[in-house]
Amino acid sequence: MLIIGEKINGTRKQVGAAVVARDADFIQDLARRQAQAGATYLDINAGTGKTEPDDLVWLVQTVQSAVDLPLCVDSASPAALRAALPFCTQTPLVNSISGERARLEGVLPVVAELGCPVVALAADDSGIAKDVEGRLAVVERVLQATRAAGVADGLVYVDPLVLPLAGLATSGTVSLEAMRAVKERFPEVNLCIGLSNLSYGLPARSLINRVFLAFAVQAGLDAALVDPTDTALMQELLAAEMVLGRDPYCRRYTTAYRQGAYGFSAKPSAASSGLDAAR
Amino acid sequence: MLIIGEKINGTRKQVGAAVVARDADFIQDLARRQAQAGATYLDINAGTGKTEPDDLVWLVQTVQSAVDLPLCVDSASPAALRAALPFCTQTPLVNSISGERARLEGVLPVVAELGCPVVALAADDSGIAKDVEGRLAVVERVLQATRAAGVADGLVYVDPLVLPLAGLATSGTVSLEAMRAVKERFPEVNLCIGLSNLSYGLPARSLINRVFLAFAVQAGLDAALVDPTDTALMQELLAAEMVLGRDPYCRRYTTAYRQGAYGFSAKPSAASSGLDAAR
Repeated sequence: MLIIGEKINGTRKQVGAAVVARDADFIQDLARRQAQAGATYLDINAGTGKTEPDDLVWLVQTVQSAVDLPLCVDSASPAALRAALPFCTQTPLVNSISGERARLEGVLPVVAELGCPVVALAADDSGIAKDVEGRLAVVERVLQATRAAGVADGLVYVDPLVLPLAGLATSGTVSLEAMRAVKERFPEVNLCIGLSNLSYGLPARSLINRVFLAFAVQAGLDAALVDPTDTALMQELLAAEMVLGRDPYCRRYTTAYRQGAYGFSAKPSAASSGLDAAR
Repeated sequence: MLIIGEKINGTRKQVGAAVVARDADFIQDLARRQAQAGATYLDINAGTGKTEPDDLVWLVQTVQSAVDLPLCVDSASPAALRAALPFCTQTPLVNSISGERARLEGVLPVVAELGCPVVALAADDSGIAKDVEGRLAVVERVLQATRAAGVADGLVYVDPLVLPLAGLATSGTVSLEAMRAVKERFPEVNLCIGLSNLSYGLPARSLINRVFLAFAVQAGLDAALVDPTDTALMQELLAAEMVLGRDPYCRRYTTAYRQGAYGFSAKPSAASSGLDAAR
């Protein structure tokens, strides 16, 4: 599972200001904290200003001089991507294309030329469909385009997207079903998800996001765009993989616990409570 | 979803001592705390001593005079069940029969006679099968027996059981698949689960139990034998039902949050953080 740290995002106020001010300390601190928390990729987004190409190049260099992680370069601007991608020292993931015409015509050629893996959002110029079939129709069109451009399915990370549950009760299940359907129809394609829209407008958002993440893992998720410093979320992810039989001998889980990773604080008593006597 | 509070269990040291000493305050406190925490049933188990029939009658009466909840009467003794069930003021759930010959021959006639719903464990005299087919074979045999005894499928709560993940990496998935298969083959039958064996021998057990519970809800769970005072578990359950589209308008979730139920402590800021800007 790729854990893509989401925090270096120039559309967030503080990060945007740090990019403008070339505040390397602020950015590098965000990078280091996410790496330490367990991120295996870092998303970097320089905002959408006129100086985006220069800003994105600066971000790539600034982050890479702080941490040794591959980057998820997050931009809708072909010019910014063309400027920044050559500075990546490890193969970057490009975030993102979609069924939107401008993105597909602008970003896809860059990705195809450089041979980068790319996130593909299940949205088009009419927005995000409310049902599974609508999402899949967009995914199919995007995959036709990536294939036509010579991008192998294995380089594509489909993000089925999530709408806010507060507005659509079936939002979670639609996204989960779309994930299963994508894996079934396009077995080489990877699945990626950004979580936070799901809980928009609801309280205790981290709880909702992590429960959905566990279901997404079950549905075949390969990459998650998350806040890796949310330790409850990281613990849920680790436990979900173990419960789903993907952690032989529970080794990753018990090692993380012993090492105090993901906010675990090992207590001698926690492991020693006995077999439940209810039965 | 039936939330069956598991804490009044005489095979646990303190509870067993309270039963022997007829310490009504101790038992009633456990009953009230579980009811307040959100239990909709209370499991009561008087231990397995020679005085079990009298002990179970005392427990039924003691618990019922403290809380207004139906009981899940937990005993393998036909004599104890026959003694205690008539004292239940609301239809009790009997916990349990299984494929074990003694339980089937002893407890099933009591259940059939009184028309009570009953938990049926997917185990027999050779123990708990490690694979889905083995569990299902036992379930089928038990259901043949319940049907033959005139107990409708809708009165049966099949518990597929869980083995410790520490000894069997597929333990979670076997139980989840067994649940799905039971619902498919016997659509009238209900599903019940006791969680805690899954995490036996592992640290941070509550985390593992609640993640599995979310998957079990997805697999069609109707009743869970849990510690309702585990607020993280209750929150996970609430969030799982909402994420799975079973909480129209998010009403149960937001109401619980506003009322500070399940350990939620409403903070004005939690609901007001904006739509994630990553995309």
